[in-house]
Amino acid sequence: MILSKRSKYASNPIEEEDKVAEELTRKGAKIIPLNRGDPPVYFPTPKYIIDAYVKALREGKTTYSRAEGLHTLAGAIVKRYKSMYGIEFDEESVIVTQGVSEALSFLNSALINENETAVLFKPYYPLYVPLLMTYGGRAILADYNEEDNWSIDIEGLKRKLAEAHSKGKRIKYLLITNPNNPTGTVLGKKTLQEVADIANDSSLLLISDEIYDEIVYNGAKFTSIGEVAKGQPYVILNGASKDFDSTGFRIGFVAVPEEDKISMELKQKLADYAKMRLSVNLPAQYAVAEAISNTKEHKKAISKMVREIEKRANYAAKKFSENPLLTVTRPNGAFYLLPKLDMKALKFKNDAEFVDRLLREEFVQLTRGSGFGAPSHFRIVALPPKDILDYAIDKINDFCAKNAK
Amino acid sequence: MILSKRSKYASNPIEEEDKVAEELTRKGAKIIPLNRGDPPVYFPTPKYIIDAYVKALREGKTTYSRAEGLHTLAGAIVKRYKSMYGIEFDEESVIVTQGVSEALSFLNSALINENETAVLFKPYYPLYVPLLMTYGGRAILADYNEEDNWSIDIEGLKRKLAEAHSKGKRIKYLLITNPNNPTGTVLGKKTLQEVADIANDSSLLLISDEIYDEIVYNGAKFTSIGEVAKGQPYVILNGASKDFDSTGFRIGFVAVPEEDKISMELKQKLADYAKMRLSVNLPAQYAVAEAISNTKEHKKAISKMVREIEKRANYAAKKFSENPLLTVTRPNGAFYLLPKLDMKALKFKNDAEFVDRLLREEFVQLTRGSGFGAPSHFRIVALPPKDILDYAIDKINDFCAKNAK
Repeated sequence: MILSKRSKYASNPIEEEDKVAEELTRKGAKIIPLNRGDPPVYFPTPKYIIDAYVKALREGKTTYSRAEGLHTLAGAIVKRYKSMYGIEFDEESVIVTQGVSEALSFLNSALINENETAVLFKPYYPLYVPLLMTYGGRAILADYNEEDNWSIDIEGLKRKLAEAHSKGKRIKYLLITNPNNPTGTVLGKKTLQEVADIANDSSLLLISDEIYDEIVYNGAKFTSIGEVAKGQPYVILNGASKDFDSTGFRIGFVAVPEEDKISMELKQKLADYAKMRLSVNLPAQYAVAEAISNTKEHKKAISKMVREIEKRANYAAKKFSENPLLTVTRPNGAFYLLPKLDMKALKFKNDAEFVDRLLREEFVQLTRGSGFGAPSHFRIVALPPKDILDYAIDKINDFCAKNAK
Repeated sequence: MILSKRSKYASNPIEEEDKVAEELTRKGAKIIPLNRGDPPVYFPTPKYIIDAYVKALREGKTTYSRAEGLHTLAGAIVKRYKSMYGIEFDEESVIVTQGVSEALSFLNSALINENETAVLFKPYYPLYVPLLMTYGGRAILADYNEEDNWSIDIEGLKRKLAEAHSKGKRIKYLLITNPNNPTGTVLGKKTLQEVADIANDSSLLLISDEIYDEIVYNGAKFTSIGEVAKGQPYVILNGASKDFDSTGFRIGFVAVPEEDKISMELKQKLADYAKMRLSVNLPAQYAVAEAISNTKEHKKAISKMVREIEKRANYAAKKFSENPLLTVTRPNGAFYLLPKLDMKALKFKNDAEFVDRLLREEFVQLTRGSGFGAPSHFRIVALPPKDILDYAIDKINDFCAKNAK
């Protein structure tokens, strides 16, 4: 056996049907891909960002950058957090990464010893788990509560922690996603404060993935972890992919704002990890520096995009609510819905079969909920315009009806 | 202690003096950085590549790509290997990565269990070691022989393997770098065949980092591992950074050309790893697809660059040979020199002190040889034009003279 033991955890449920989709496409089928949350497919990346990218290329910005990231970009990130959320940190507290995935690889490698654990919340972004487990870690799964609009189950979290402590488990971090993918939950300030306090009381490093922080709607208000976790070690993950509509640039970042011993050790070590891969794409860093700094152009672009996403997500939720064979919660952030199939009333063995057959028979590609720790659910991306959503959700609803017991 | 045990291995000797250099720059010093092998600093990335990059951006190619890499790019890579080296493989055998560093992370995570080993050759590219050790691996260090023009010590390799086997060590792969960084060695076909046969006899996966494959000169001829390893599992690492003069794009790739069981398992697993980080920068992939496919423009650009590098490297070697306090071997590939300091005749404690003081006192930044497994040496990048090399090497030679015992 050539492969390592850990390598069995390497997988991504979001892309597991891609080979089937490719094969069907080759045979002439027209697939509607609603599995990847990829805004620029439907909202062209704003021209002012592309212009900055092109300018950097034309000026010969094609060398390695500082490994931790371009100072200009780190500076833009620092300024953004101060003006948007009142959180203050310096450029040395920022490491620019190749997407949030790389940031998570660095964090897991820097933090996790064999069999140490991390707290995640179910339903979770699927890649948190393999990115933890391929570094020898194990997940402790706390819950979002579907009955309570997918908000965090605080009492359940406390119980999980008490149970883990009583078993002598060593917990390294607690990771929240706000707004959440796949549920669209935007955590209220009070809940967030409770989570921060629990992490602090248990001496857990608090990590907040805030990649969708500007994509909130239906009156929800986003709170950054830094607004409630001042004085305790915490980590912010974010990037340009979603707010700045540029998934293909691969620009993420990690910020470790505090100056306590743990935070200092961690930020220095993350810089070491950054140096091990020399650099992030340089012209893309210039583009994102401009994307963030030019707040006037950004405000125009993001408010237009979020207005559209709000309409589309609400439209999708409404259309799903007409299907008696599933239940759906309307999201307030990000751009996903996670409907729950009434498995007792349907002929499918599980959500994986539902998703696979829907792709093969109706040419609509979703992601199985079990990939997010939510069996009997599926995730749909609500980014496409109304006519595509209309067509796809009709297909889904009809497919349910056809397969009712 | 918040940090993991493995994290202590995360470091990069090439950048360890960067903080000192930044500080000196802030105080007004003008540093000559000869530590990073970054061609576009001195040779602007060819216009036809930039044009392709800009075209992709203007056409809205800003989404995620296929995780394993754009088909167009994989296709260009396949065609390149067939026409340049007669090596045949399909697009599914190629995974596009964020530089060769990411390819090495994937490989180590996919292959190495705790305390398993890999064979490297000393002097080595420094990041091979932490990229192995942060995944729990340990290095078995075979040798390049400085007395024999830095070619591989085949008998020494056999002894090292026999010793490792007798100790019951589990060896997963043998990694060569051809042309080598930091010695500039271009391995002859016969030597390469011997190494391939040894790997085959010991059932070791053979990995060849060929990132400098087109940067050979002084009459040397490059042989790809695929020309001698047909029929055994092997891996080629390469990318756009050096041959295509675009370090800042972060486009590397790994190819697993064969179809045996080990090769099939490995390439499927590498695809899983690629999916865990979703995508590589998309417009850069379009740029590199064009960079590779447009062989006419590429030939013009690379032959001009290599002619210049040959002149510069030879000039640097000649200038160092006039210094009686060090010895130098003229490279035939890549763009580094690795002179050996006569430590008995010099007042420095070690190469680290030499490099650190040279930076602080003479404002020339090199990398310590011990970072490459070659104590008493230093590495210098021979990319700058003659006047800069002249100035820097005068500084180095004078600094040696000033510090002679």
